[in-house]
Amino acid sequence: MKQQPSIPKGTRDFSADVIAKRTFIFNVLKKHFARFGFAPIETPSFENTSTLMGKYGDEGDQLMFKILNSGDFLNKVDKKEIDKIRRPVLASKICEKALRYDLTIPFARYVVQHQNELTFPFKRYQMQPVWRADRPQKGRFREFYQCDADVVGSDSLWLEVDFIQLYDAVFTELKMQGVTLKLNHRKILQGIAEVIGVGDNFMVFTIALDKLDKIGIDRVQKEMEAVGISLKSFEHLKTILSLELGASKKIDALKKILSKSVVGMEGVADLDFIFTTVEKIGVNINIDFDLTLARGLNYYTGTIFEVSAPKNVAIGSIGGGGRYDDLTGVFGLKGMSGVGVSFGLDRMYLALEELALLADVAMPKAKVLFANFGKEEAMKSVEALAVLRKKGITAELYPDNVKLKKQISYADKKQIPYLVMLGSKEIEKDFYTVKDMADSSQKKLSLQELLELVCS
Amino acid sequence: MKQQPSIPKGTRDFSADVIAKRTFIFNVLKKHFARFGFAPIETPSFENTSTLMGKYGDEGDQLMFKILNSGDFLNKVDKKEIDKIRRPVLASKICEKALRYDLTIPFARYVVQHQNELTFPFKRYQMQPVWRADRPQKGRFREFYQCDADVVGSDSLWLEVDFIQLYDAVFTELKMQGVTLKLNHRKILQGIAEVIGVGDNFMVFTIALDKLDKIGIDRVQKEMEAVGISLKSFEHLKTILSLELGASKKIDALKKILSKSVVGMEGVADLDFIFTTVEKIGVNINIDFDLTLARGLNYYTGTIFEVSAPKNVAIGSIGGGGRYDDLTGVFGLKGMSGVGVSFGLDRMYLALEELALLADVAMPKAKVLFANFGKEEAMKSVEALAVLRKKGITAELYPDNVKLKKQISYADKKQIPYLVMLGSKEIEKDFYTVKDMADSSQKKLSLQELLELVCS
Repeated sequence: MKQQPSIPKGTRDFSADVIAKRTFIFNVLKKHFARFGFAPIETPSFENTSTLMGKYGDEGDQLMFKILNSGDFLNKVDKKEIDKIRRPVLASKICEKALRYDLTIPFARYVVQHQNELTFPFKRYQMQPVWRADRPQKGRFREFYQCDADVVGSDSLWLEVDFIQLYDAVFTELKMQGVTLKLNHRKILQGIAEVIGVGDNFMVFTIALDKLDKIGIDRVQKEMEAVGISLKSFEHLKTILSLELGASKKIDALKKILSKSVVGMEGVADLDFIFTTVEKIGVNINIDFDLTLARGLNYYTGTIFEVSAPKNVAIGSIGGGGRYDDLTGVFGLKGMSGVGVSFGLDRMYLALEELALLADVAMPKAKVLFANFGKEEAMKSVEALAVLRKKGITAELYPDNVKLKKQISYADKKQIPYLVMLGSKEIEKDFYTVKDMADSSQKKLSLQELLELVCS
Repeated sequence: MKQQPSIPKGTRDFSADVIAKRTFIFNVLKKHFARFGFAPIETPSFENTSTLMGKYGDEGDQLMFKILNSGDFLNKVDKKEIDKIRRPVLASKICEKALRYDLTIPFARYVVQHQNELTFPFKRYQMQPVWRADRPQKGRFREFYQCDADVVGSDSLWLEVDFIQLYDAVFTELKMQGVTLKLNHRKILQGIAEVIGVGDNFMVFTIALDKLDKIGIDRVQKEMEAVGISLKSFEHLKTILSLELGASKKIDALKKILSKSVVGMEGVADLDFIFTTVEKIGVNINIDFDLTLARGLNYYTGTIFEVSAPKNVAIGSIGGGGRYDDLTGVFGLKGMSGVGVSFGLDRMYLALEELALLADVAMPKAKVLFANFGKEEAMKSVEALAVLRKKGITAELYPDNVKLKKQISYADKKQIPYLVMLGSKEIEKDFYTVKDMADSSQKKLSLQELLELVCS
């Protein structure tokens, strides 16, 4: 029974070299998460379907991977009704578990479930894969990593300031120049919606606006028209969005435009503080006040963030986040304001690769290969191998007594710098013939000399 | 809509302290995997169902978590037939993907799929979660980590010797005394089956024998009887299994008992070499030749390993592995002998915890908390914070301007050793009041002195 092996669409295998580069990025993130006072948590790969459903909008519910119940999964379903039950409803009946769709909802569930063990404001980071049944394309996978840092239990804007510094620290260390952090505020968007007369349609307005990047202004207009947002309102919106001003002037302009919207003015005051403070501190990345930034996920209520890769890298957003006032409310814990950011590991990797910033990162290679000349010789090699490994040297014995040429080719392909040959002559006279694979030169060394050579 | 938050049965949340301890074990494994010449790979969390089904026996097929197809998952199923189709068959029709059940089959799939990019003998390690819908109990989870190292492309017994040394290196570094590595050989079991006259029933014989630990000799007899293994054969088996001899004497005895079984004698010769060689090298862990060890998974064909935790820890097997002659054959690549071992991270963690060997492992804590006395003071603190973090110090600003008592309590609960107070008086006179949380003593320091204090 031969099968052509393949993996599911949108998933990937990772080789050692790719893992080395990904690990390098993970470690930079971990270092800065820790330095900013975040500690890690981990949650299960799957949650109860009821925990996740309804938290990400209709699209999220559809793109969620659901896990079929074990055993007689149809036992609670009336078979005569099967054709009448809508598929998503049936799916929920026969799948009690679903794969994690993001890290934020599991985090909210974690906070509520463990609230009595936690110290608030609670700061955590989490770097785990998430799964979405999205159509795969460049930079979009069905299994990918999110690396999130969040704080819950405080509405202090110093946290927003801290997250901007965190983004700055990470992208500075990664030497990724030209990164832009876009900021906006849900309350400002709400203010704009009020001012242009579509305050009651805020969710629809946000969802349409969120697509601006992808579908362009004309189609956004059509979507807004379809849900009853008038051309007049839309023209008003366009005027506001087209403000070509730096952050502080844009804030001044909005103070006038939104003066009649209480909520809008709250948003303006928040961003005013954040921009002023960050300017005083000084950061390397570009900070941009982008009124068109909406962020689709409907749990955001305050500041929203999105990070764009440098312009010469066509990869889109590599991170994002924002403030949510009541994320844990749905699980029974009210009044917990939180704010957090996410780093998209997979897209950061693609961007860094394109910018040739990972060229020097590689998996450490074995330093020594012992050639295999037969049972007795191998036995002696294994003894030497143990000495080297105890000193922390990565070393191998070629497992089979085959032609030396084949063994040399193995060392060559695996970029192992030293080949040690221990034949009967060497054993008799107690030395090791060491071949330097770079220039094919050979030396006769004692074990001590061999150790010194490979430790240097 | 309040929901009582919970997680699926058999899964776990991990807090920072547990992650620190688990990471410690992961790092020991990684270090030794690398030192023995293994490089990491990673495979997707889910594979095509067809890749996994039929590889782990009926039980494996049942315990595999299957992922429901997206969209109209019933569109290829004749609704009138639903009640007539066996559930496992229907499950395969509506679930094209399934969660990884172990790391060995995905590894085999990887080797075949990427064979042209790999250097053989190919050595890889892999540390990833696997999922099984098993009944949860102590040490048995539905999501757990396997940490595997395998070599394919060589039938050299030096690899078995290397894996024994790898087990030894890991458990020695972890200071886990009293670990026993049990060895046996599938060909010896086959020889025994031949000698007692049940050679044709080898698979059934192995499966029954594998349960000896769990169900005892009497029930094993009943199971064997049920599949037609006579009482006489069983009594013969019992005599062989009850040989109370050290490894080398047991091998001598088997040379006589199995002298008429060609395959049995091959197994004896293999273990003879392995035991003799390992004895010459010398290892710290106990090595035990256990004729009752069978290993259920049906891909093993040669040496088999199983690691038992120290006797005072009731946790069962913490690792295992073995040689398989044709693992990649099912995916179209014949004649690739391989051998590998697995470490059970979750059970190792439980065992090390019980032995109090992880007591000293903890997540590094933040070193400094800046108290928050208001906007201007916080601004100054944020500037100092940036200086500390650039030096690699983990430091935080308490986000809210609340009562000092509450801020001190936060530092206390999070075991942050220094609280820095920067009020208007301090700003005016340019110093930092630093409270040592251990003894509540306070000092007035310059920023430079603060740095020296927390770096020491």
